[in-house]
Amino acid sequence: MIKKYLLAPGPTMVPESVLLEMAKPMMHHRTSEFSNIFADVREKLKPIFGTKNDCLLISGSGTAAMEAAVVNTLSPGDKVLVVNAGKFGKRWAEICSKFQLDVMTIDLEWGRSVKVEQVESALIANPDTKAVFIQASETSTTAYHPVDKIGNLLKLFDNTLFVVDGITSVGVVETKMDEWGIDILVTGSQKAFMLPPGLSIIAMSEKAWRFVEKSKMPKYYLDLIKERKAQNNNTTAYTPAVSLIIGLNKVLDLMHEEGLENVYLRHSVCADATREAVKALGLQILAKDIPSNAATGFYLPDGIDGGKFVKFLRERMGVTFAGGQDHLKGKIVRISHLGYHDVFDTVVAISALELGLKKFGYEFEMGAGVKAAEEVIYKSRIKGL
Amino acid sequence: MIKKYLLAPGPTMVPESVLLEMAKPMMHHRTSEFSNIFADVREKLKPIFGTKNDCLLISGSGTAAMEAAVVNTLSPGDKVLVVNAGKFGKRWAEICSKFQLDVMTIDLEWGRSVKVEQVESALIANPDTKAVFIQASETSTTAYHPVDKIGNLLKLFDNTLFVVDGITSVGVVETKMDEWGIDILVTGSQKAFMLPPGLSIIAMSEKAWRFVEKSKMPKYYLDLIKERKAQNNNTTAYTPAVSLIIGLNKVLDLMHEEGLENVYLRHSVCADATREAVKALGLQILAKDIPSNAATGFYLPDGIDGGKFVKFLRERMGVTFAGGQDHLKGKIVRISHLGYHDVFDTVVAISALELGLKKFGYEFEMGAGVKAAEEVIYKSRIKGL
Repeated sequence: MIKKYLLAPGPTMVPESVLLEMAKPMMHHRTSEFSNIFADVREKLKPIFGTKNDCLLISGSGTAAMEAAVVNTLSPGDKVLVVNAGKFGKRWAEICSKFQLDVMTIDLEWGRSVKVEQVESALIANPDTKAVFIQASETSTTAYHPVDKIGNLLKLFDNTLFVVDGITSVGVVETKMDEWGIDILVTGSQKAFMLPPGLSIIAMSEKAWRFVEKSKMPKYYLDLIKERKAQNNNTTAYTPAVSLIIGLNKVLDLMHEEGLENVYLRHSVCADATREAVKALGLQILAKDIPSNAATGFYLPDGIDGGKFVKFLRERMGVTFAGGQDHLKGKIVRISHLGYHDVFDTVVAISALELGLKKFGYEFEMGAGVKAAEEVIYKSRIKGL
Repeated sequence: MIKKYLLAPGPTMVPESVLLEMAKPMMHHRTSEFSNIFADVREKLKPIFGTKNDCLLISGSGTAAMEAAVVNTLSPGDKVLVVNAGKFGKRWAEICSKFQLDVMTIDLEWGRSVKVEQVESALIANPDTKAVFIQASETSTTAYHPVDKIGNLLKLFDNTLFVVDGITSVGVVETKMDEWGIDILVTGSQKAFMLPPGLSIIAMSEKAWRFVEKSKMPKYYLDLIKERKAQNNNTTAYTPAVSLIIGLNKVLDLMHEEGLENVYLRHSVCADATREAVKALGLQILAKDIPSNAATGFYLPDGIDGGKFVKFLRERMGVTFAGGQDHLKGKIVRISHLGYHDVFDTVVAISALELGLKKFGYEFEMGAGVKAAEEVIYKSRIKGL
């Protein structure tokens, strides 16, 4: 028996109770039974988004929700600014380019977080910018961008939307969409919401809905006017991903029972413990400015092939980490702290990391990582009990 | 206890073994374990599509695959012909209009099947037609269109694609995409594939791929060039609906074990039994020319409110039928024969129908419907054993 631990930043582990909830017999989506669940889900999402706006569910990956943000609010030729600091920043730029927007980028070294001043200068130089696109947590680099501060800046720009990919931040860290001035916030099911992939969520401010009225881009499946109308009648424009929505209802109950503060604290403790452990092992963390609490990426020691390292741990030890993407492929490892993940998952992660490093010939003191992680966990969970 | 029977044309019942397969712990999608399943699924789909072409999986409802068919092959201003004979024919027209195509329609009364000659005349009058859109089975009317014959006609038109919505026909009746000359065939997970909704499938001929090269419509999430490249490497462009794909793998095993001929025969017997029962009860079937084996729609007796009728059976008897859509709302009932549905599901359906009709004051001989259904079932399943 090789017991399995899914510790990559999405899909994440799904609680057994949620798997069983989704395994119940299928129900029809045009019934009051489903509509009641659907309405509950949409209400329970709001405090996690930090919004009074409508949260709309889309059957599709997070990328579908990203595309929906673009095609519902803008028109070909509109100027937009993209913070390009990793694979998903690049994805914003790609989507915007495909839909014929005039794309400016702030290009950052992978691992950096953007500074508010960089966004401010770009906007001052380009006052006709219609939208700023960013990740809250850039999953490819495990860096967090200061979306609260940027949102605050954007409040001064009436004609510019602030569009945030919250795929690995909503449900991970406290997110105050309304207070921070985020106009569009998207996320997916397979991260903090600890569900299988296939469902995404988008919320939009009143300001964003005003942009929707003017948008001249064609859309059908992702037409949010149609979706809002349907969803505010407790149904969907097209057949929804029924089982994922039923799972989400259960997940939201679990999150609210735990208490959102505790959910965020749990992610924070696991992230902090991982970072301390990685440092104690003498490895360099990728996120240079503000590390994300969703996952921790770090460079492997020279000479270790990241692809082989991750494969060995997955196939021989049952522990799934993520490697690097694009130019960081083979060079880094990313350990998740997302979703159905508690402190002993972090202990397992660090232990597996140590065992792998030893196997691949790295010299270090065995146990030093776990010790550092335990110290963080002890301080947060046990000290003072 | 009110035991539940989901007998609407999608979502359909999911086999218990498939529910449990999907309830297994989540796996990461960028692993050889998932890639092997993914490759298997795509191979096992081909005989059901009747094609040697690539079957591409999309995380999204059937409508997403319909939109993919349009935006990947055509360009704004292209002339297209839509057979508009129900809600889903209308959906083809809506999608095509949204994406600025020049849309001609053949408008039929709901319940009718198009005649090949109607398509032929339209194409002769409009030789610059770039594509013909149709449903094989129009779920809203439970009528089947002769897509084999229309495909044969379309073989004479080198510059015209034949695009078929097979959402309630693929896996229901034998479908020979290649032989019949279908260029694009789409389907969804929640019908004959007896899965929860949220996954759709699209297959395209070499001719269709040549259109793709020339298409000038913007697309990102539904970009099939990107998907084909990824999927032929046994992965997906974006995070796939992992649990549904794992469920599909199991479903395809069940279908192939049963034998596709037997799957189609099962649908045919249940459909035939339902039609005979409905007629024996003195009710009028909606499909006038070629009834679909996916579901049977029929008019309720005058004075019975279809909404209340369907609600009563669902809430008080546990039996979910579908009502009518658009202008047929409240007037018809649709009983499904799709997916995880065998002859005794049909018996339950007819029995529930009789009990409901009695409750709502219709005068008829109790048991006459079930008797008619049993006669069909006996002939097919027992006689000669």
